Amino acid sequence: MREVRITRNFTKHAEGSVLVEFGDTKVICTASVERGVPRFLRGSGSGWVTAEYGMLPRATGSRNGREAARGQQGGRTVEIQRLIGRSLRACMDLKKLGENTITIDCDVIQADGGTRTASITGAYVALRDAVSFLKKDKHGAMKGDPIKYGLAAISVGVYKGEPVLDLDYAEDSAAETDMNVIMTDKGGFVEVQGTAEGEPYSQEELNAMLELAKKGIAELCELQEKVLA
Amino acid sequence: MREVRITRNFTKHAEGSVLVEFGDTKVICTASVERGVPRFLRGSGSGWVTAEYGMLPRATGSRNGREAARGQQGGRTVEIQRLIGRSLRACMDLKKLGENTITIDCDVIQADGGTRTASITGAYVALRDAVSFLKKDKHGAMKGDPIKYGLAAISVGVYKGEPVLDLDYAEDSAAETDMNVIMTDKGGFVEVQGTAEGEPYSQEELNAMLELAKKGIAELCELQEKVLA
Amino acid sequence: MREVRITRNFTKHAEGSVLVEFGDTKVICTASVERGVPRFLRGSGSGWVTAEYGMLPRATGSRNGREAARGQQGGRTVEIQRLIGRSLRACMDLKKLGENTITIDCDVIQADGGTRTASITGAYVALRDAVSFLKKDKHGAMKGDPIKYGLAAISVGVYKGEPVLDLDYAEDSAAETDMNVIMTDKGGFVEVQGTAEGEPYSQEELNAMLELAKKGIAELCELQEKVLA
Amino acid sequence: MREVRITRNFTKHAEGSVLVEFGDTKVICTASVERGVPRFLRGSGSGWVTAEYGMLPRATGSRNGREAARGQQGGRTVEIQRLIGRSLRACMDLKKLGENTITIDCDVIQADGGTRTASITGAYVALRDAVSFLKKDKHGAMKGDPIKYGLAAISVGVYKGEPVLDLDYAEDSAAETDMNVIMTDKGGFVEVQGTAEGEPYSQEELNAMLELAKKGIAELCELQEKVLA
Amino acid sequence: MREVRITRNFTKHAEGSVLVEFGDTKVICTASVERGVPRFLRGSGSGWVTAEYGMLPRATGSRNGREAARGQQGGRTVEIQRLIGRSLRACMDLKKLGENTITIDCDVIQADGGTRTASITGAYVALRDAVSFLKKDKHGAMKGDPIKYGLAAISVGVYKGEPVLDLDYAEDSAAETDMNVIMTDKGGFVEVQGTAEGEPYSQEELNAMLELAKKGIAELCELQEKVLA
Amino acid sequence: MREVRITRNFTKHAEGSVLVEFGDTKVICTASVERGVPRFLRGSGSGWVTAEYGMLPRATGSRNGREAARGQQGGRTVEIQRLIGRSLRACMDLKKLGENTITIDCDVIQADGGTRTASITGAYVALRDAVSFLKKDKHGAMKGDPIKYGLAAISVGVYKGEPVLDLDYAEDSAAETDMNVIMTDKGGFVEVQGTAEGEPYSQEELNAMLELAKKGIAELCELQEKVLA
Repeated sequence: MREVRITRNFTKHAEGSVLVEFGDTKVICTASVERGVPRFLRGSGSGWVTAEYGMLPRATGSRNGREAARGQQGGRTVEIQRLIGRSLRACMDLKKLGENTITIDCDVIQADGGTRTASITGAYVALRDAVSFLKKDKHGAMKGDPIKYGLAAISVGVYKGEPVLDLDYAEDSAAETDMNVIMTDKGGFVEVQGTAEGEPYSQEELNAMLELAKKGIAELCELQEKVLA
Repeated sequence: MREVRITRNFTKHAEGSVLVEFGDTKVICTASVERGVPRFLRGSGSGWVTAEYGMLPRATGSRNGREAARGQQGGRTVEIQRLIGRSLRACMDLKKLGENTITIDCDVIQADGGTRTASITGAYVALRDAVSFLKKDKHGAMKGDPIKYGLAAISVGVYKGEPVLDLDYAEDSAAETDMNVIMTDKGGFVEVQGTAEGEPYSQEELNAMLELAKKGIAELCELQEKVLA
Repeated sequence: MREVRITRNFTKHAEGSVLVEFGDTKVICTASVERGVPRFLRGSGSGWVTAEYGMLPRATGSRNGREAARGQQGGRTVEIQRLIGRSLRACMDLKKLGENTITIDCDVIQADGGTRTASITGAYVALRDAVSFLKKDKHGAMKGDPIKYGLAAISVGVYKGEPVLDLDYAEDSAAETDMNVIMTDKGGFVEVQGTAEGEPYSQEELNAMLELAKKGIAELCELQEKVLA
Repeated sequence: MREVRITRNFTKHAEGSVLVEFGDTKVICTASVERGVPRFLRGSGSGWVTAEYGMLPRATGSRNGREAARGQQGGRTVEIQRLIGRSLRACMDLKKLGENTITIDCDVIQADGGTRTASITGAYVALRDAVSFLKKDKHGAMKGDPIKYGLAAISVGVYKGEPVLDLDYAEDSAAETDMNVIMTDKGGFVEVQGTAEGEPYSQEELNAMLELAKKGIAELCELQEKVLA
Repeated sequence: MREVRITRNFTKHAEGSVLVEFGDTKVICTASVERGVPRFLRGSGSGWVTAEYGMLPRATGSRNGREAARGQQGGRTVEIQRLIGRSLRACMDLKKLGENTITIDCDVIQADGGTRTASITGAYVALRDAVSFLKKDKHGAMKGDPIKYGLAAISVGVYKGEPVLDLDYAEDSAAETDMNVIMTDKGGFVEVQGTAEGEPYSQEELNAMLELAKKGIAELCELQEKVLA
Repeated sequence: MREVRITRNFTKHAEGSVLVEFGDTKVICTASVERGVPRFLRGSGSGWVTAEYGMLPRATGSRNGREAARGQQGGRTVEIQRLIGRSLRACMDLKKLGENTITIDCDVIQADGGTRTASITGAYVALRDAVSFLKKDKHGAMKGDPIKYGLAAISVGVYKGEPVLDLDYAEDSAAETDMNVIMTDKGGFVEVQGTAEGEPYSQEELNAMLELAKKGIAELCELQEKVLA
């Protein structure tokens, strides 16, 4: 696993603001708290957590067209932000959040593989800071601690026949299999997405990748708690 | 597993046209062959397979706004069509396809859970028919059989604590875990996507779901070959 | 006139669901009932009927780009769906419908000429089923039977100098004149749209086409009532 | 019929520029000549004529949102501009035009009913001026006079039970039937679009409306030629 | 300065309607009054003035694609309409306007340089007519005269080394510096925008341009008042 | 003037990458070099410089909707990125750049007033690094040094009756006048944009603001050269 750094309070306006670095991958994760919830939840007493993802045009080796200028988020962006939001909701009790919305923005300023797993790992820390903000807020209407679990994400793959943890861009591009694993600090699976890039993979390879992922997740959860302490 | 029916030559214009039914879920899968490939492949000698997915507005219990009228495909649609395309490419040798593009359209006319797995299972049959069309075409420029594997997809879940195969809408809505498994006829994994809907799931539950999925996939591959014979 | 088939209850979710076939042209027409009306009618006591039209990408001989993916409905689509909605409203007393909205979706799964006239003819049957649904609904707030007339549509043209009824794609492409006629079962005109494709047409040709259309409409209305009985 | 005025050379840049007034309805019609044709005609030796239609936001009694700001042309706009383009092409021999494109812009600066028929009537005059421009152009590659017919358009309706020619906005809003008739100076029909606004109309009403239209068209064609002389 | 003409009541529907001509540049400016204000002002007691700008496709020497058809307003359009709105608000006391919205539409029907300054100069006159309309309206809820200043705009530039007033298109294209100056009739600056087109400009050139602009503005304000008298 | 910091090589992929900080305003400016130019310059031998601007959603006190998700860049964004691009081109000899395109991306990660002037000041440094990259590139086809001038930008305003340099968000919101001044290191004006926020401003205030701006620009140019040395 590459060196992981998590810096809280990276920017000054957001209720939670984290710079997360997995090696050369750098993502700014902010959490914004708003009173109220989307229409489909109004009056339910339940809160909402959602996420948006973006990349600066030159976060990558060659420039990607700016999605705002093209007038549309790409398919990959949509897929990733849905994954981030879904994962964060899975570690929460939204009823306890009360009718508040927390929006997580994950913006990649430098990409070197694993931007979605870094985003989730950083977003969780920003989310915790936003929840702390709400706890101190007399008008926030929370009904207890909405955080049920710790949450982290890591990529694993099969590269040159060997299971590998936390692939950088070069490894990821050449990997036979690419798997993103999102787990709680209690060892439960929140999401497993394993894609054969070259050849189909076997049950043994799947098991080996999950084993590796569990170790990585445990380390990440420990680091998150240390940073939040 | 619900009753599965696969009807070839469902409409008359497409090079491959299949109606696939998983119980009350009904999807029209067509395969369209075009000479040439997208720009990023021109001159590479390699072909391309891509997929688009849609639902008729009233395929579901209540009417969904038409995506063409809203001016945008929704996030769920984008996610599904990327999955279909990626899975189909994983069972092919695109080099052997030559510089041809096969576009798979999966249009759900009636939805009752499992539309993405039904789509992939039907799309594979339409793809095979399109490849047969190209084989007979003297100008098609194929360089051998581009089909490397059979391919099918099935959903599994944990429902009331029990692993369940091929969830219908009612089960899917209430399932604790929802997993889509896409495999080859040789038993290799092409894609595994398992999402905790309620609580995180355990390694044991994951294993039980995969075991069930393998059985379902084997049945589906057998049916596909029977229909194609 | 080609063989016409009308199949009710074609899909299971919609309040009205019809497969209509004019020869090889096949259209799924569904009617969806919703409480309430668009803003411009709120509080008026009047209901609303509107229509949307679409074609599966491979309903035609070569694949058409999916409108949802292109982010816009084409001009032809817009023109047709406005015609369908306008025609259906012309056979109704919207006051008697109460503040309900019926949305008709016409989706062409196979095209061989005459998709707009088939759509209207099938949509009317789906509309009738939706009205029957509302009649049985205690909360539906209807104020009597909103159906004033039967309604059907047929294309006529001048092809090789002769007036022809219900042109298929080959005839339509080669016709000198193309006319769509929408009439009530009482013989009143709801819409007449006649376009010179090659040379301008004469009053005599117009008369001959209308004469032919009347006969076709009468047959269609009879078939609709038989199917609805 | 209201007073009709046609002013050529209304603005200075376009190859044809006409202000057409049908009573208080005022439309600027410009014709722009460009070398080359759309892709589907390249190399065919044939030219192309197309039209776009718009309304200034406050051409009407209450302000309509600007289509450019809403990011989309409305359904009515699309329908009208397709009608204008189709009608103009019907009076031309596009082969003789050579590989040139003439784009007609019809922009309504004040609306009082009949904007589409005024547009077509004015557009024809602008088109003629553009063709004259091309005739004088040594590089224009025309192959003879591409104008086959004179062309004009008029609306007719049934209003308070009587057939009426050239309805203004007040009449149009209250008419039972609204018909747009586009004819050549030789008396051939190019397009007939008759819509029942209230009750279906009869063959007798249809005949009476067409009779009235023919007289109006003849007057308009005479005026056009006088203005062009 | 080119000859300037201002024609009130140019079209009949709008509460203010002005044709403004700066030489061959011709712009229709309409002011539309609506009760109510945008959401961010509701309940504030304050009114709102906003502007939209457009060009007919063939207002210019060669045809520009229609923004409504392209589905987006261009950057230049957005920039200009923001400038017009901002300038008009600067000469008003929006509190006195009450909760009314005045929308100014500036549509260029012929362009020959200086369309934005002509637009502002004409828009002010239309705005004054709209305010007069509101004054006479018992339900208009105005709280005194909201007009604080007269307002006009003029372009100046450095062309062949000399400061020039009110550049036409030929001068504008060749100018080294292009400056738009918007001032009140009391000589206060509302907006100054000076852009080096070729080489950077000096303080002396800036001063010379502003001097020239002041004279032009004074003449324009005089003409506006004469026309409004 | 607030403390200004300029950090080169802030991210690793771009040919020029700068973090610029004006007090709490922080902008990442990257310069991306691509061979070739937009269509309107092909074959001209001239290069192109263009800019895009964005803000992370939570760069500000309350969250702004993500432009990519809304499907459109806002008017303010468009206005700013046009200003940045225009200013950078004004300090260059594009002929000497050869047929290369440099795209500048300015992404605000934290906003506290003056984001456009910080962007221009940082963008110039990134541009210089990109030009250095091209100088070392044998295939880059530059024809001499394309940089004609140093370039920096600063905001000035009138706040509580006093001219103020480099306004932060609190000052900017309350300022009577807001002016952005962009100048070369030789003291030439590239762009002056002065807007009356409250009352119109006088010639004296204009002069005082420009005087202040000149001092600020001189300091910024000095800092840029120090950083680039």
